Amino acid sequence: MTRLGVLGSGKGSNFVAIAEAIDRGELQAEIAIVLSDVADAGILSKAKARGLPAEHVPPGKFRTKMEPEAEEALVSRLRAAKVDWVVLAGFMRMLKTPLLEAFEGRIVNIHPSLLPAFPGLEAWRQALEYGVQYTGCTVHFVTPEMDAGPIVAQAVVPVQAGDTAEALHERIQQEEHRLYPRALQALAAGSLTLRGRGVLRT
Amino acid sequence: MTRLGVLGSGKGSNFVAIAEAIDRGELQAEIAIVLSDVADAGILSKAKARGLPAEHVPPGKFRTKMEPEAEEALVSRLRAAKVDWVVLAGFMRMLKTPLLEAFEGRIVNIHPSLLPAFPGLEAWRQALEYGVQYTGCTVHFVTPEMDAGPIVAQAVVPVQAGDTAEALHERIQQEEHRLYPRALQALAAGSLTLRGRGVLRT
Repeated sequence: MTRLGVLGSGKGSNFVAIAEAIDRGELQAEIAIVLSDVADAGILSKAKARGLPAEHVPPGKFRTKMEPEAEEALVSRLRAAKVDWVVLAGFMRMLKTPLLEAFEGRIVNIHPSLLPAFPGLEAWRQALEYGVQYTGCTVHFVTPEMDAGPIVAQAVVPVQAGDTAEALHERIQQEEHRLYPRALQALAAGSLTLRGRGVLRT
Repeated sequence: MTRLGVLGSGKGSNFVAIAEAIDRGELQAEIAIVLSDVADAGILSKAKARGLPAEHVPPGKFRTKMEPEAEEALVSRLRAAKVDWVVLAGFMRMLKTPLLEAFEGRIVNIHPSLLPAFPGLEAWRQALEYGVQYTGCTVHFVTPEMDAGPIVAQAVVPVQAGDTAEALHERIQQEEHRLYPRALQALAAGSLTLRGRGVLRT
């Protein structure tokens, strides 16, 4: 059984979508561990409520990344849990060498835009302010460059007349909750393989 | 009747789509003049075959823009033809001050991607090489910065498994031929207005 390590900083809605897809048998995998850089993150309490191992890993003194020792601690926890895939679900820190090397080609993230459009923070707001008529979400492999790794899966979300940032964000998240489990199932089933920049579908 | 001035450098497939939409009564406008920087461009012969005024304007010594005098010549022709909207249809040169000021907020272009993703040349090839699952086309107002003006309309084109650049380009062009006349009709009908960065829909 494919073992997932889920990293998140927030309320954990994608974590719940993944856990529910496992419950329904749509995703053949198990969540081996849930880790967060935020002590009181909803993702940790939701994981514990499901009886899953969940742990806070203090990030150290930086704001946008883990301190190297903290990132090594993440790696230790993920290795001890025998994780096959590292699944970022609202994890708000850039990953650096320790984790990227330890799980090379085995780390995925979901981003609330049709990448390469609108990398970075609040992508739904960026999309609304730019005035696009279509945005969406993207599951991608994580590489050192932010939101720029090879694409695993995408879904389109139309912007509606009179959309607010909140309404658009909500519809994108609903699409994320469908897309992420499906993308993870393709990865778990081995039907997607990373080859350099490309994603091989078999 | 709204008068369009169409500028193109190539075979003129979007010009034909616009002319046919006018013939069918779906676009309430008339093509007042067709201009090209390329003497033997298909767009000129196709326009002449339809009995439309069509003229080659020599671009001068530059490769990616018109010489200022050449751009002034474009402006003169468009003004003499009493053009309301300048419609770029495969026009392969950047526009500069003379035309941008003379027809401020009245110049539109169509680009073969979901902008802001993949500005610049061969956007369909860029999309394929990046590995996106959705691309498309964008009608946008023309501003001094390339492919960055406010968006008028977009359409999505899914990338298919095994797509070649040529096959993807072909499907995007088919979508362009539907999107551009519809966008021009919205502009001609006055239901879209440019307000700063935004496009107001009424």
